[in-house]
Amino acid sequence: MLSTIGGLGEFALITRVTSQFPGTDDVILGPGDDAAIVAAPDGRTVATTDLLVEGRHFKREWSSARDVGHRAVAQNYADVVAMGARPTGMLIGFAAPPDLPVAWAEEFTAGVRDECALAGGAVVGGDMVGSDVLTIAVTALGDLEGRAPVRRDGARPGDVVAYTGNLGLSAAGLALLERGIDGPAACLGEHRRPSPPYAAGPEAARLGATAMLDVSDGFLQDLGHIAARSGVCIDLDSNALRPDPALLEAMGILGVAAGKVEEAARRLMLRGGEDHALAAVFPSEVDLPEHWNRVGTVASTADPSGEDTGPAVTVDGDVAEGGGWDHFRQE
Amino acid sequence: MLSTIGGLGEFALITRVTSQFPGTDDVILGPGDDAAIVAAPDGRTVATTDLLVEGRHFKREWSSARDVGHRAVAQNYADVVAMGARPTGMLIGFAAPPDLPVAWAEEFTAGVRDECALAGGAVVGGDMVGSDVLTIAVTALGDLEGRAPVRRDGARPGDVVAYTGNLGLSAAGLALLERGIDGPAACLGEHRRPSPPYAAGPEAARLGATAMLDVSDGFLQDLGHIAARSGVCIDLDSNALRPDPALLEAMGILGVAAGKVEEAARRLMLRGGEDHALAAVFPSEVDLPEHWNRVGTVASTADPSGEDTGPAVTVDGDVAEGGGWDHFRQE
Repeated sequence: MLSTIGGLGEFALITRVTSQFPGTDDVILGPGDDAAIVAAPDGRTVATTDLLVEGRHFKREWSSARDVGHRAVAQNYADVVAMGARPTGMLIGFAAPPDLPVAWAEEFTAGVRDECALAGGAVVGGDMVGSDVLTIAVTALGDLEGRAPVRRDGARPGDVVAYTGNLGLSAAGLALLERGIDGPAACLGEHRRPSPPYAAGPEAARLGATAMLDVSDGFLQDLGHIAARSGVCIDLDSNALRPDPALLEAMGILGVAAGKVEEAARRLMLRGGEDHALAAVFPSEVDLPEHWNRVGTVASTADPSGEDTGPAVTVDGDVAEGGGWDHFRQE
Repeated sequence: MLSTIGGLGEFALITRVTSQFPGTDDVILGPGDDAAIVAAPDGRTVATTDLLVEGRHFKREWSSARDVGHRAVAQNYADVVAMGARPTGMLIGFAAPPDLPVAWAEEFTAGVRDECALAGGAVVGGDMVGSDVLTIAVTALGDLEGRAPVRRDGARPGDVVAYTGNLGLSAAGLALLERGIDGPAACLGEHRRPSPPYAAGPEAARLGATAMLDVSDGFLQDLGHIAARSGVCIDLDSNALRPDPALLEAMGILGVAAGKVEEAARRLMLRGGEDHALAAVFPSEVDLPEHWNRVGTVASTADPSGEDTGPAVTVDGDVAEGGGWDHFRQE
């Protein structure tokens, strides 16, 4: 019975799990009291939360416990760095059925610990409860280090649009897993463990980014948030979207005709979800480091005749069709 | 179909819900960006998280959506004030089946909003996802206002033990609901909507409390945490535990024999869960305001012969039996 979390018991499991988390300079008080205390030297705390539900956000058949731990941390700290902040602390709520193997909880913990080490933040607290559905609630905190936050509403006509990180690989990985096809490790791996470019968030803030976000619902749809909130139009240059070789390979494996591979890959770069790349808008004069890919420009919402046509995202001048991800969608 | 959250859709629901939350001076950036920004004027942020799972932490038959909203906020801000901090901001993850009525989500939101107004903190962000099990993840943040946090490990021999808030009423309310018996509104109400004494947390810190915690797993068990972490013994005076008249009434309704009512009520005060009273330890010379009930004293772990017997909680000098709450317990 000690091999399931129900057999081991809540307090023993908490003790085992929390002993895995090293402190950092940001941890003033870690797990074990009513609440944790995290440094906020800037005088402001950046905070974001996400829920991961088994069967909807991950499947135990497709992702190891360690993958899920990595991903739970990655998608939350990606939101922190997308404000231009440095990850500091994290709280994890863990709702699980009593028959969950202790080994799963321990591997998940190892994934959380290792991804926190990559991102630079610590686990400072959490909660463990029983539930019929394995559900993970993550809250991530960050520090702005004295900088202004990079919001979604600051893009201005004349700015350039760039991204860093991977686009399309995660969606290709998901498509391969759904069809039970083995494919490029870069695609499967990116779906199981996204790799947000953590350092690029504070970097973009230092470079003077006027708007930024974490790409999670698809590049086009997320740029639509910047366009709408900033009151601008964004036009992407499809030739500047250079698909990763692994993405092109995945398209072939998924049965895309030879002449259509590039187009299909670009489609996934524009519409695939869960990329956790960073999309940012910069003043045109900023000298961008090489890992930022310039892919578009910002214009006013007025058309050449002067009429205001409203915020929009276009690709090579054409309005891109909609299509987002609705978590409550009934299929 | 618009009467269910699946029909209404995620984005429309988020818009409807977030429009309900007023800002406060602590909200630097509210919902709608990658992350929220909350003031942390002290340079440290207090943070705690809790999961509420339908069927385990609340039942839709027993508690209204509004009650659940109140409770989700109350149990988290109770942990914040138990550190001696002032509530500032809160993030709410909401995982729900698509057939959840929109009205339930809206009433829940109203409860959250109203309890936040009582506690003094704001809702600054959240997440909404689909799940077969209605699950609410709350993270609460607070500011220490320059004071040292009141932890669990600072109690010293000679200190006095006190509590403020209600003990036993919530457990009596639960017992009544489980048996389908109507009973005192104070008991049913305290189970559905606990009323933590928010202001008393920072007050205790200002008065010099050496240890404090939120009573959630039962007064005895929670005092055991202070005893263990502080390396002390705590002795409670049962005569100082004065049951609320509603608690005595509930004991009668639950069939306790007339001569046993006081004893049964005290038992619930010592062992009932989900009270969300505050238990604190103060230096003996502190002049405690009337709403703090002195109920015990702190002694060293050495017995009269000088032998160290280890931390313990006793009632009238006798070791109290154990019995806690394990969330993964298989019944």
